[in-house]
Amino acid sequence: MNVSARVPRRLESYVCGRWTPGDKQGVPLLDASTGAAIAFIDSTGIDFAAALAYGREVGGPNLRALSFHERAQMLKSLGQVLMDLKEEFYAESALTGATRADGWVDIEGGIGTMLSYSSKARRELPNTRVLLDGDVELLSRDNSFSAQHILTPLHGIAVHINAFNFPVWGMLEKIAPTLIAGVPSLVKPASQTAYLTELVVRRIIETGILPEGSLQLVSGSVGNLLDHVEGQDAVTFTGSAWTGRKLKSHPAVVANSVRFTMEADSLNASILGPDAAPGTEEFDLFVKEVAREMTSKAGQKCTAIRRVIAPKAHVQALVEALGDRLSKTALGNPSDEGVRMGPLASLAQRDEVRERIRDLSADAEIVAGDPDNVRVFSGDAEKGAFLNPVLLYCDKPFTASAVHDVEAFGPVSTVMPYEGIEEAIALAHKGKGSLVASVFTNDPKVAEEMVIGMAPYHGRVLIGNRASAKSSTGHGSPLAGLVHGGPGRAGGGEEMGGMRGVKHYMQRTAVQGTPRLLSAVTGRWIEGAGAGDTSVHPFRKSLAELKIGDQIVTAKRTVTLEDIEHFAHFTGDTFYAHMDEAAAKANPFFDGRVAHGYLIVSFAAGLFVDPDPGPVLANYGVDNLRFLTPVNPGDTLQVRLTCKEINPRANADHGEVRWDCQVTNQNGAVVAQYDVLTMVAKTWNAA
Amino acid sequence: MNVSARVPRRLESYVCGRWTPGDKQGVPLLDASTGAAIAFIDSTGIDFAAALAYGREVGGPNLRALSFHERAQMLKSLGQVLMDLKEEFYAESALTGATRADGWVDIEGGIGTMLSYSSKARRELPNTRVLLDGDVELLSRDNSFSAQHILTPLHGIAVHINAFNFPVWGMLEKIAPTLIAGVPSLVKPASQTAYLTELVVRRIIETGILPEGSLQLVSGSVGNLLDHVEGQDAVTFTGSAWTGRKLKSHPAVVANSVRFTMEADSLNASILGPDAAPGTEEFDLFVKEVAREMTSKAGQKCTAIRRVIAPKAHVQALVEALGDRLSKTALGNPSDEGVRMGPLASLAQRDEVRERIRDLSADAEIVAGDPDNVRVFSGDAEKGAFLNPVLLYCDKPFTASAVHDVEAFGPVSTVMPYEGIEEAIALAHKGKGSLVASVFTNDPKVAEEMVIGMAPYHGRVLIGNRASAKSSTGHGSPLAGLVHGGPGRAGGGEEMGGMRGVKHYMQRTAVQGTPRLLSAVTGRWIEGAGAGDTSVHPFRKSLAELKIGDQIVTAKRTVTLEDIEHFAHFTGDTFYAHMDEAAAKANPFFDGRVAHGYLIVSFAAGLFVDPDPGPVLANYGVDNLRFLTPVNPGDTLQVRLTCKEINPRANADHGEVRWDCQVTNQNGAVVAQYDVLTMVAKTWNAA
Repeated sequence: MNVSARVPRRLESYVCGRWTPGDKQGVPLLDASTGAAIAFIDSTGIDFAAALAYGREVGGPNLRALSFHERAQMLKSLGQVLMDLKEEFYAESALTGATRADGWVDIEGGIGTMLSYSSKARRELPNTRVLLDGDVELLSRDNSFSAQHILTPLHGIAVHINAFNFPVWGMLEKIAPTLIAGVPSLVKPASQTAYLTELVVRRIIETGILPEGSLQLVSGSVGNLLDHVEGQDAVTFTGSAWTGRKLKSHPAVVANSVRFTMEADSLNASILGPDAAPGTEEFDLFVKEVAREMTSKAGQKCTAIRRVIAPKAHVQALVEALGDRLSKTALGNPSDEGVRMGPLASLAQRDEVRERIRDLSADAEIVAGDPDNVRVFSGDAEKGAFLNPVLLYCDKPFTASAVHDVEAFGPVSTVMPYEGIEEAIALAHKGKGSLVASVFTNDPKVAEEMVIGMAPYHGRVLIGNRASAKSSTGHGSPLAGLVHGGPGRAGGGEEMGGMRGVKHYMQRTAVQGTPRLLSAVTGRWIEGAGAGDTSVHPFRKSLAELKIGDQIVTAKRTVTLEDIEHFAHFTGDTFYAHMDEAAAKANPFFDGRVAHGYLIVSFAAGLFVDPDPGPVLANYGVDNLRFLTPVNPGDTLQVRLTCKEINPRANADHGEVRWDCQVTNQNGAVVAQYDVLTMVAKTWNAA
Repeated sequence: MNVSARVPRRLESYVCGRWTPGDKQGVPLLDASTGAAIAFIDSTGIDFAAALAYGREVGGPNLRALSFHERAQMLKSLGQVLMDLKEEFYAESALTGATRADGWVDIEGGIGTMLSYSSKARRELPNTRVLLDGDVELLSRDNSFSAQHILTPLHGIAVHINAFNFPVWGMLEKIAPTLIAGVPSLVKPASQTAYLTELVVRRIIETGILPEGSLQLVSGSVGNLLDHVEGQDAVTFTGSAWTGRKLKSHPAVVANSVRFTMEADSLNASILGPDAAPGTEEFDLFVKEVAREMTSKAGQKCTAIRRVIAPKAHVQALVEALGDRLSKTALGNPSDEGVRMGPLASLAQRDEVRERIRDLSADAEIVAGDPDNVRVFSGDAEKGAFLNPVLLYCDKPFTASAVHDVEAFGPVSTVMPYEGIEEAIALAHKGKGSLVASVFTNDPKVAEEMVIGMAPYHGRVLIGNRASAKSSTGHGSPLAGLVHGGPGRAGGGEEMGGMRGVKHYMQRTAVQGTPRLLSAVTGRWIEGAGAGDTSVHPFRKSLAELKIGDQIVTAKRTVTLEDIEHFAHFTGDTFYAHMDEAAAKANPFFDGRVAHGYLIVSFAAGLFVDPDPGPVLANYGVDNLRFLTPVNPGDTLQVRLTCKEINPRANADHGEVRWDCQVTNQNGAVVAQYDVLTMVAKTWNAA
């Protein structure tokens, strides 16, 4: 595609398995730097009810037929293809006003998020179709009635309504967890930059990797789409609070209790710690970070630093350092060499930001940058939506309101002074809930007080200091493994956060019943479910043969005082409770000398291990080991080992098997309870 | 209090630390069985904005000053006092139309929920003020930048708006998790039965156990209260969907992203399994359960069975058995001996239920009970709000709509036939989301298919069978440890669920930074944070002296082939990978004979244990043990043991200390990584 001289194209929507143009040519979308038309967008005539139904009825069952690992593998394949195509996306991204660095966050950041979801899901989720949530809840004394929470994919469709500033990342960070959950998506990008989203969706669909119906796209207005959402659907919205509130109150959303996640712009604060005086590394890092957050993506980031909260004593030095740094920002056409900051997304956006700077000026004075006279390094200062960074200073932030309420969605921040940590926290709270805050300090006490103080009002808090100068991912970067969203003004939503974001598209259900039936539902053996096959040692069975509940009850072994002494001297663990009767008796937990916990589990293995080569390849760990009853010399141990969970790997000849291991004494009391983790071959031919 | 002849009292609100009557006498509340006036209720003149502010500014800080265990202990003390006062509550409860059995669910069920929260919190939460959520997220290769999610109490107030049917339980099940979280509550009971809630709050306040500002009560309308909710507040609502939607769309709730949890009535289904033919125990249990759910609380339960889904072949037998059982329900004044079902809450409520039965009749015919002619065992059939149980039958449930949409909030259910499990599931889905469903089956395959099929539409699913006949808590009973709430029509809310419900009143925040500063914030040592004191063996320190980060790096020990063979013969674990070089080499994970995992941890203990009596009392367990690198004969082990977490118990002389244990080989590779769990004395005087 020749970007410089191309004919504007008509964007299409991808619904019900077909690329579909709107009935009309629609409105033109303009290059942010030159004002040239790039594309036309329109969605009139699209049957939104049919699109939603198609996702629910075709995409949902297709996705639910796959396991978590299969869906994760799908994302990995997709991410790899998209990464190979990235240069095509970068070319289109420049038209939005994004520099290469801005595009990196959007494009490679977006694809990276998808890949990260893929690997996290394969690492952190079982290769099943139902997730277990939390532990078994015992509901009866005789163990005949228990409960287990499970998570199953919603049977609806997720509607993702995105903002203009991250046309790639905004889509991928949302569809990645949705797809892992097993739920289809319909994506509606903001029109302004929808040409880039549309291009990426075209490439995704072309790969044929996603099952039919699992991804749809609306280019243009969503019209009456929300009238058709139902109780199993979810809607996410990223953008202005005004639009978000309207959607959240939509009658169909409210009437059907549709899950609604909102991520709105917020007045994010960054605080300079009292210890971070001029001359410290933290001061310099702070200046760098604030300037970077103001100028990257021309400040059009929902996570950008809008409020710069600094110790009163250091405010002057800070304003000077920031002004100096900002004045060196080369503003221009993002395709040009040497440009560090591109234009805003549109001239309308620039008018809007100038208006907001006027609002802020009620409380604050401009101390760097001229909002009205643009100074560009390249590009057309008139036709392009350029704006130099503007820094304001508010001397009385506790009586001011605009600086805590008005967001100028561009390269604009306000510095304000504080005295004492409590004041800094109180100022941060005046943002009424933000996506992120940061504090720059090298003092653990400051970090603790600031972070705990700010946490209830924030979805993410970053601590910056010298030790992470090189590795910090920065104030403004949401990450796949961390929650993104914030309370109050930030919309009250929560996205990503690793597998937390996946669960957002699943229903949590408490299942109650007898252990036998519960085990059948959950695929995990639980206490009280009884034994399956006990005729063969379960270590002789491959994954193909093994079933949950298969069990061995071992022979018995009596622990002698000689065993304990021998183990103590052999291992070197001569803790007094094993060696000295009087001292052991003085211990509040013991009546006399006891066996080592490690002796118990070692003897237990000696009882349950089947020594010959077989399908069980290795014991790779132990979970939740608890020593419940002390073992005294003369006590006799016996082990009951039960196959608890079977998790075949998608891409290997083996899988994980979790065994419930219960060691009892001669009175039937449980002395140790734990899960033994093994690798077991999928098949095994006895020699 | 003489219930039978008392003078109606004026209910008061408890706000801003004072009992306050409304400005007017207000409306009378009537005995459900006799129509006699019990009380007057009014809240005019109450300053709701001041009440909310009082909770936030007085109650919040008071609660946040306590630890989780301290708050849990408070609930235990409170629950014990309330249990002693239960007879006073039962007397008042009878006026609402509740039988003793109904009152038990409300009063002892409510207090039990509070006590259950207390014990679960002390067992499952640390004794701290901040909760950690999930594992550390590594964000840099060199371990200089990581993240940890934390949960902190919201700084706002929770407004709990409750339904009339459970005036005690409805309040206690909500304030218990709220108080554990450290958040104050304002409770607004439904007026109809508010006299009982008001009485319980009076008794709670009189105990002086709750800190000032942590519980307020509004008796009467909440007027403009919701206009004043803010971003750190939460609102919960239990009641009709119509009111719930109105509150959820309230401008202040939407604008400030106030957490809103709704629990609305739903068309809960109970399914008779295809295997549960007449003559089976499951058939009889099903009949008993449906009849009980229809008549307990006169069917005024949001979890009651409204739709009875049965195999077509068994429908006739079922209708007969149910009709027979229901006809024996003794309806009357709940204070009278022998009465099994009381009246509805009011005459207006009875009119409403009769109206809904007429709606249902569009799809279904009445097969048992006469909605218009009341037959009472005792009480006044005219002045009391009595209604006999009514059973309907809908022959074509796939074309019917009223039976899946109309809720008669009384002793009313509709039987409908299905053929095949898929049809049964599809019928359950037609309720568009319910709080609970149940299935009666003794067949594991049926249980699995039914439960997984229904789960996305339900917050809770109960499996009934012969093995849990005596221990089952029943279809209609929400439990403290299980989530209560459901998607879609049920409101989309989630309450209780043990500690899940506590987290609803807390903000999750991702905290990023260097491990050293992160550890300072979270109170848990993490990898990369460096060592604290290494000059003294940390096992020589009591809880008073120990700090996270305190560390010992042990001497080294070489593992010989003799050690491995000796350990094998001593323990009996002669697994081939330890004993047979050729066989070990054939294993995909090993290059030759390896040491036992249990040998590694035993030798590790020998290296790190300090043998003499001291503050470390016992090793009670091990968590997350992973063997990461095989240990071959000749490898040399060394252990680094670091104090990771310190959790002093509130009511004991000791507490739990979690140690990070890392075993490395001569190349610095980690061979085993785990947490060692110990009990450590709060103080220790060296002899």
